[in-house]
Amino acid sequence: MTQIAAPGRYARPEQWPDVDLVDTDVHITPRSLDALLPHLPARWRDYIRESGVTGLESDLYPPGSPLSAIPGSRPAGGPPGSDPDLLRTQLLDAWGTRFAITHCIYGVDGIHNPDWAVAMARAVNDWQLAEWLSGEPRLRGSIVVAAQDPQRAADEIDRVGHLPEFVQVLMPVRARMPLGNRAFWPIYEAAARHGLAIGVYAGGAGGNPITPVGAPSYYLEEYVLLAQAFQAQLVSLVSEGVLVRFPELRIVLIEAGFTWLPPLMWRFDKNWKGLRREIPWVDRLPSEIVRESVRLTAQPLDEPDDPRQLLEVVEALGSDRMLMFSTDYPHRQFDDPVRSAPIGLSTDAMTRFLGGTALETYRLNGE
Amino acid sequence: MTQIAAPGRYARPEQWPDVDLVDTDVHITPRSLDALLPHLPARWRDYIRESGVTGLESDLYPPGSPLSAIPGSRPAGGPPGSDPDLLRTQLLDAWGTRFAITHCIYGVDGIHNPDWAVAMARAVNDWQLAEWLSGEPRLRGSIVVAAQDPQRAADEIDRVGHLPEFVQVLMPVRARMPLGNRAFWPIYEAAARHGLAIGVYAGGAGGNPITPVGAPSYYLEEYVLLAQAFQAQLVSLVSEGVLVRFPELRIVLIEAGFTWLPPLMWRFDKNWKGLRREIPWVDRLPSEIVRESVRLTAQPLDEPDDPRQLLEVVEALGSDRMLMFSTDYPHRQFDDPVRSAPIGLSTDAMTRFLGGTALETYRLNGE
Repeated sequence: MTQIAAPGRYARPEQWPDVDLVDTDVHITPRSLDALLPHLPARWRDYIRESGVTGLESDLYPPGSPLSAIPGSRPAGGPPGSDPDLLRTQLLDAWGTRFAITHCIYGVDGIHNPDWAVAMARAVNDWQLAEWLSGEPRLRGSIVVAAQDPQRAADEIDRVGHLPEFVQVLMPVRARMPLGNRAFWPIYEAAARHGLAIGVYAGGAGGNPITPVGAPSYYLEEYVLLAQAFQAQLVSLVSEGVLVRFPELRIVLIEAGFTWLPPLMWRFDKNWKGLRREIPWVDRLPSEIVRESVRLTAQPLDEPDDPRQLLEVVEALGSDRMLMFSTDYPHRQFDDPVRSAPIGLSTDAMTRFLGGTALETYRLNGE
Repeated sequence: MTQIAAPGRYARPEQWPDVDLVDTDVHITPRSLDALLPHLPARWRDYIRESGVTGLESDLYPPGSPLSAIPGSRPAGGPPGSDPDLLRTQLLDAWGTRFAITHCIYGVDGIHNPDWAVAMARAVNDWQLAEWLSGEPRLRGSIVVAAQDPQRAADEIDRVGHLPEFVQVLMPVRARMPLGNRAFWPIYEAAARHGLAIGVYAGGAGGNPITPVGAPSYYLEEYVLLAQAFQAQLVSLVSEGVLVRFPELRIVLIEAGFTWLPPLMWRFDKNWKGLRREIPWVDRLPSEIVRESVRLTAQPLDEPDDPRQLLEVVEALGSDRMLMFSTDYPHRQFDDPVRSAPIGLSTDAMTRFLGGTALETYRLNGE
């Protein structure tokens, strides 16, 4: 890796247009499992104590890896992304962020006991409200649900989805089954009812290997091929008719990359023409549905060396209302903040990229 | 689907340069299982008769589907692609084909009993020699092996791999495990020993669902996502070091599409830079290795509507020595033969596409 820029340089580039900046991918996390205990019923506090569970953090961001945290983002006594004051100074103030969309990914989807998962999701949401969202109007949160029990996931969305603090419902890309599956529809119905987006994040404990031919040998392969899970979920959400049945619903693919999307749309459109009778509810080109309903956070950019080729991909998307600025704070995805946006966008497209599209997607325009 | 052109139009377009045409994807198949019996030992003839096996044809090409066969390709008493005379008149003569690379995909990889699989692979190879390859010098065949027993697969390659009639060894893309796995290396070693390519074909009975999140509901999804299996295999073959250990080996992805390849190379290169210490034997950019070692048959084209966008993808491949002309005979992949090549290639690139690259890949230059 190249040297990271000095911390003072982790800030909005001066040459960007002066528009409301919306950061669509910011991670927050509890200092430890203890922070969630006050939000759990006694039954589950006892269960956690008696069974010796120490935490449900994912192992995706090993503390020693330079990608896991930008310098200075680790507070005393907690992991990066666990201190609201630090996030305020290092991210919101430094970048002049108007809104930051936060995600707390805390292993709820990996819990097999559905009642425990439901209780944990509720605790994470109440903790987010108490510790982060109520005190900082620039932060907008994502509702964690236990998709293991879709009806109770919908109940949880109904419980907190009307609050302005929440703008999104999180689902893991590595889910137990394709996300278009009808079992999940109560979740989408509830999200649509409250005008919430569905954020599909780069994680999950579904248990299937990352390839259609079994587990690969190296983490590099896992990382490269994670884009396949997003592609499969997108094809599922379109094919099963979720995006036709809920036309107002916005699907946000978080940390999916996007250069794979034009070829996927070409292939999907072409084969839909031959096989559309299988899915008659998809009554127009899949690419049209994707352009209307799908948004993508931009980091990490799965980019070519040549910025012109990246611009060709952006043009091949066929829409300048799909990509959204993100930092992935506190994870480190770029050394030079200028590289957090495709280089060469028109001022209009850049304005939408930096904030306009996110304001619409998360219905933040009235505020 | 649009109307298919009249059969007389299924021929080489007049405007193409006058070069040796190599068709890299032609399917041949036995009229029935009976055709293979003379090439099997008595033990397995008895086994087939006693167990009531009637055939091992895949169900990928249902007889009633318009894609399964171009008009007139079905002989009396057999499936399309089972009659050498018909193939001669309808394909080789009509197109003026210099060489056609044939594939017989006959379910050998789906057999669980490894001894039966080994015997069937040998029978298919002997049947190909006797019925197709020995009598028609324009045809060059692919060796079928039982990868279920890699050492005996290598033995089979040693048995017939020196014959000029064979230019390739077939492996299924939906294998039981990633193709880079060291268990398969005896196969690659034998192929390299005989100067044979490895052809990875769009099929296989590995048993894993086509997505990393379980089986999708619709065949359309299977079809769109089959490209993911090719991507996973390519990442595996590079990451495990197969293409470094056997630098002369050429991997031909058959019916994989190719528009997904530039974004995959970008993502692979970028992440290799961060994670290369995991696979120190990959000592240069994965994209360099891919460009050197990988070839792709062009049909079916997973193309955008706009031919200029397809040309951008061809340019983003970074090499005009990767794509190879193919008809997929007798399957129907294009209505207008002009559409069997990307439109707008330079004369040089077109010459390589139509034959030059295949002549090199299959070492047919001396003939």
